Amino acid sequence: MQIGIIGLGLMGGSMGLALQEVRAQLPIKRILGFDSNPLHAQMALSLGLVEECLDFASIQACEVLFLAIPLDGIVQVLQNLKPAPHTTIIEIGGAKEEIIKAIPPNLRSQVVASHPMCGTEFYGPKAALKGLYQNKIVILVDCQHCAPEHLERAKDIFSAIGMQMVKMQAHDHDQHIALISHLPHVLSYALANVVLSQESPQNILSLAAGGFKDMSRLSKSSPTMWRSVFKQNRKRVLEALNLALTELQHAQNLLENQDWDNLEAWMARANCLQEFM
Amino acid sequence: MQIGIIGLGLMGGSMGLALQEVRAQLPIKRILGFDSNPLHAQMALSLGLVEECLDFASIQACEVLFLAIPLDGIVQVLQNLKPAPHTTIIEIGGAKEEIIKAIPPNLRSQVVASHPMCGTEFYGPKAALKGLYQNKIVILVDCQHCAPEHLERAKDIFSAIGMQMVKMQAHDHDQHIALISHLPHVLSYALANVVLSQESPQNILSLAAGGFKDMSRLSKSSPTMWRSVFKQNRKRVLEALNLALTELQHAQNLLENQDWDNLEAWMARANCLQEFM
Repeated sequence: MQIGIIGLGLMGGSMGLALQEVRAQLPIKRILGFDSNPLHAQMALSLGLVEECLDFASIQACEVLFLAIPLDGIVQVLQNLKPAPHTTIIEIGGAKEEIIKAIPPNLRSQVVASHPMCGTEFYGPKAALKGLYQNKIVILVDCQHCAPEHLERAKDIFSAIGMQMVKMQAHDHDQHIALISHLPHVLSYALANVVLSQESPQNILSLAAGGFKDMSRLSKSSPTMWRSVFKQNRKRVLEALNLALTELQHAQNLLENQDWDNLEAWMARANCLQEFM
Repeated sequence: MQIGIIGLGLMGGSMGLALQEVRAQLPIKRILGFDSNPLHAQMALSLGLVEECLDFASIQACEVLFLAIPLDGIVQVLQNLKPAPHTTIIEIGGAKEEIIKAIPPNLRSQVVASHPMCGTEFYGPKAALKGLYQNKIVILVDCQHCAPEHLERAKDIFSAIGMQMVKMQAHDHDQHIALISHLPHVLSYALANVVLSQESPQNILSLAAGGFKDMSRLSKSSPTMWRSVFKQNRKRVLEALNLALTELQHAQNLLENQDWDNLEAWMARANCLQEFM
């Protein structure tokens, strides 16, 4: 089996590294790559993320194609792919309804829509990490539309690299992920911008401890990638953001009214998170 | 030197452990404790955080007293202390102006106001951690009011347990800390409450990856402790929260208007945090 990875950044590059670890097990003949940025392709090669970089036409001959690019790119690439019928296409975008709507009908049964629940704030080939996918969850979305042979092949690969699979419908996925991933990113970008807009952010940031570091980590994520996530999951992100604004305005009112008992109760409610994770 | 720790939770208990590591170096004769909750006092003893627990009257005979209790408690204890003139009182509250205003004039030169920039989301004696203070920053606030012998003694202790000292005025401290610590806590409590208010939080939380875990960690912090922090730094916390609401409403507008270029620019601005930390 030849596997082609389109997009050699954090997710695609880490996929190349993960596949190398399990090549005998699957078995994989070659791990090939394509990146629209020639510098990234070159960097991915010299970092050993893939064995060879091909052009966009040639990589389509692989039996498995990973689409590990920003969501807008996935939508666009899906329109331009001309794979053989036996090719399995695995896209790993972070929002699903818009991508799934954009799959050309003739490719629908070949495309496995998935979302690996892992990543870091870093991006580009240098961000690739061995073990990124190990012991993480991958959501398989709207599987009922995939031909069994393509779904099985994708499951074999995710299982080999150590992922736990969860099936979900696109609507539920996008709603859940807006709350658990997209909203946290908006909050983190906002926090970073609050501090950076101060007169001397350096003085403030020199005091940062673990709490601020954790809360601001996501604000270092790729604006290009997140632009397309927010664009494709706009409605759900807005709903999640409205809920957050309501909670924050509630806290603001309690602070303004010096209603300490209810502020404490609000925090105690949040503490219940401990029961779930 | 006998050191007495008032409050044997995360901060006080960890101080007991840190002092045990450097007792020869300082030198320390005894490490004693007091906690208004008898169960916590007993737990601290059995965990070896301090060598003996005394009553509130007896612990005041120590040469050094740490006040490691919620801010309201610090204000109250300062009114009730009757220490000898050679006793150094080190309070480690997370907001400063209100505490410093509450120091009785006859004790002013003996009280070293400090804020160690470390902690975890856990609380109580069981949360005490060896090494919590190691290589962390401690802010010394309004030092000009401390008698040199008390300031030097506090500095010797913080230095022995591996802390880096930064001096600051209370006004600046409270403003900076509202942004770098208090606001992140409000955001984290809000995020947790958004998810917990959903119909089936369990389903959503089962998908949580590193991003959500980081962003929700602070929401597990003690509501009692944070109630008193928010109470004492109310004005600054409200200012910081207003700035965050403005940033979030800006993002909301950009999403509503599908202004992707400006949304990307907003995220790219946040990325500048990387230049500072």
